[in-house]
Amino acid sequence: MSKNVLVLPGDGIGPEIVTEARKVLDLVNARHGLGLEISEALVGGAAIDATGVPLPEETLAAAKAADAILLGAVGGPKWDTNPDFAIRPEKGLLGIRSQLGLFGNLRPAILYPQLAHASTLKPEVVSGLDILIVRELTGGIYFGQPRGIREKEGGIREGFNTYVYDENEIRRIGRVAFEAARARDKRLCSVDKANVLEVTVLWREIMEELSKEYPDVELSHMYVDNAAMQLVRAPKQFDVMVTGNMFGDILSDAAAMLTGSIGMLPSASLDENGKGMYEPCHGSAPDIAGQGKANPLATILSVAMMLRYSLNAGEAADQIEAAVSKVLDQGLRTGDIMSEGMRQVSTSEMGDAVVAAL
Amino acid sequence: MSKNVLVLPGDGIGPEIVTEARKVLDLVNARHGLGLEISEALVGGAAIDATGVPLPEETLAAAKAADAILLGAVGGPKWDTNPDFAIRPEKGLLGIRSQLGLFGNLRPAILYPQLAHASTLKPEVVSGLDILIVRELTGGIYFGQPRGIREKEGGIREGFNTYVYDENEIRRIGRVAFEAARARDKRLCSVDKANVLEVTVLWREIMEELSKEYPDVELSHMYVDNAAMQLVRAPKQFDVMVTGNMFGDILSDAAAMLTGSIGMLPSASLDENGKGMYEPCHGSAPDIAGQGKANPLATILSVAMMLRYSLNAGEAADQIEAAVSKVLDQGLRTGDIMSEGMRQVSTSEMGDAVVAAL
Ligand SMILES: CC(C)[C@H](C(=O)O)[C@@H](O)C(=O)O
Ligand SMILES: CC(C)[C@H](C(=O)O)[C@@H](O)C(=O)O
Repeated sequence: MSKNVLVLPGDGIGPEIVTEARKVLDLVNARHGLGLEISEALVGGAAIDATGVPLPEETLAAAKAADAILLGAVGGPKWDTNPDFAIRPEKGLLGIRSQLGLFGNLRPAILYPQLAHASTLKPEVVSGLDILIVRELTGGIYFGQPRGIREKEGGIREGFNTYVYDENEIRRIGRVAFEAARARDKRLCSVDKANVLEVTVLWREIMEELSKEYPDVELSHMYVDNAAMQLVRAPKQFDVMVTGNMFGDILSDAAAMLTGSIGMLPSASLDENGKGMYEPCHGSAPDIAGQGKANPLATILSVAMMLRYSLNAGEAADQIEAAVSKVLDQGLRTGDIMSEGMRQVSTSEMGDAVVAAL
Repeated sequence: MSKNVLVLPGDGIGPEIVTEARKVLDLVNARHGLGLEISEALVGGAAIDATGVPLPEETLAAAKAADAILLGAVGGPKWDTNPDFAIRPEKGLLGIRSQLGLFGNLRPAILYPQLAHASTLKPEVVSGLDILIVRELTGGIYFGQPRGIREKEGGIREGFNTYVYDENEIRRIGRVAFEAARARDKRLCSVDKANVLEVTVLWREIMEELSKEYPDVELSHMYVDNAAMQLVRAPKQFDVMVTGNMFGDILSDAAAMLTGSIGMLPSASLDENGKGMYEPCHGSAPDIAGQGKANPLATILSVAMMLRYSLNAGEAADQIEAAVSKVLDQGLRTGDIMSEGMRQVSTSEMGDAVVAAL
């Protein structure tokens, strides 16, 4: 039976980078006889412009029907001032995550040896860096109720959100993290703020409880402020980190930036059955959209992750990753990772180079 | 009329570093005829051990009566497992902040030229770094109600906290930040997550509103995940940053660590009238407590901040800061900032050196 892949270009540089990723996906689809049916749909600001909402019914239905989803990026200043909070590009992304139950977000922060110089950190601090951040993606303060802006006595307005996790949600993401650690260096650091926030007291308790099922994995706990510090001080101390939605948003971006080449980092958002949405770690970069400057490699590497995790095509995934490594060895660089002596190429030249390397 | 200073040594390395800071405070008190009455009280784990609670009535009363407070640090593994959340060292610190209305937390991240090598970041990225983070300290998710751990249907437990700010709280901390920016490079970056959290939509709105009163200050907004990234990528782009309690906790620690010498960074927590509590940015470091390894300079520099902001003794403050710079020039270093060719000294040797330099 053929499998369905839904492609969501989104906003900003989304369409450009997805175009390059499509070239790669189409090639391996044909070469490996994967029989993937690939379709596209609107999400984010592009969907707002065309239909008035960031996640049209049609897109949601297609996403539910798909075996895997490839997303470019969403958002941009054009839609940021919309006073109706429900009509923001981000709501499209959050809607897919939530409606499809994509709770398990895997964000690797890997330093490519060819790009070691790109980091703002000293080489000895980051060389060989290979962290996996496991972020809970469908709960926590992102989705907690009640929320909103209300008037108190005297007409004073207050804004409020709710940070909430139940033990099942914590256990579910905990298992993803323990399993990931088991397949790597067997060290898991759970990040919380258990000295202040009750919700993370429960988080810590459940992680402790789970660790009995994973005696081969070494579990540690760290407060989120210290984790932010340790990522700057000595990032190589970490193997796998697991945390909630909000802390994960912050720490995964900091960790990604340690590599200096966030344009290289893919991510996966998985449901309980391994179905997933794949996207680059970087955003929609509206400032360089449409100029052929964007780095398509994170999106191309997201295709590799998609093939491996959701489409059972590990061999094709390996080939894509090898091809990316090869173009880096060839000295090809987009502007974001450019350095002396290398050859600067455009978004589409980079995509074509990966296709050629394949 | 004489002024009262309350000293709270706290836990871990707290007593050691405070002892050194006292030497400095006693000296300038005498030399400048400041007439400060200095007393000590228990807080945190030390208070739990002696009285059963982290913030004894007596300590709170003394704190309220004081004109300024000098705190070492609180917390440690010894008290972390207490199932009663109210009996944790941190609650002592949070209690003082909240009961005294110390809402304005100033956290400078400054790179001392003598310690430029200590940073894990490349010299060109951090040399000359001078950021001021203004963190709201008595509201947000740290204090929001409701909070706790409860049972849902089916006996499933869930933990929950509330992230809440009203417009007055936002305006109040906003003014502190705008004023600080006005006295510096006139650039203020407000950090929020207004694409996801309603409470920070209000935050952004009030900052915009306030900026009309400060036309000479350039206001920008940044999402917290991006801010964490930008601190790693190009920290010198920032002058003053303002944010809520939780984001401020995370970002100020990351920013402090950019300098590589968090043992050097003081902080101030101020109320509406300039009364304040002063403490080092670092924690209680229980792993090195009692070994004479701790760096007392952040606490000594906290004394300088205290003299300047709360005790109207700017000249004494300048002298302390100059003395600290001098001991660094002399090549004296505690273990945390040690490097080749320098002379490693103990906590008390460092304190004595500052006294000698004075
Ligand atoms: C666009 C935004 C809603 C999103 C998030 O905060 O989750 C993004 O920052 C991310 O990390 O994928
Ligand atoms: C000890 C802890 C409660 C405290 C906080 O989170 O505010 C500390 O991390 C700080 O930043 O002063």
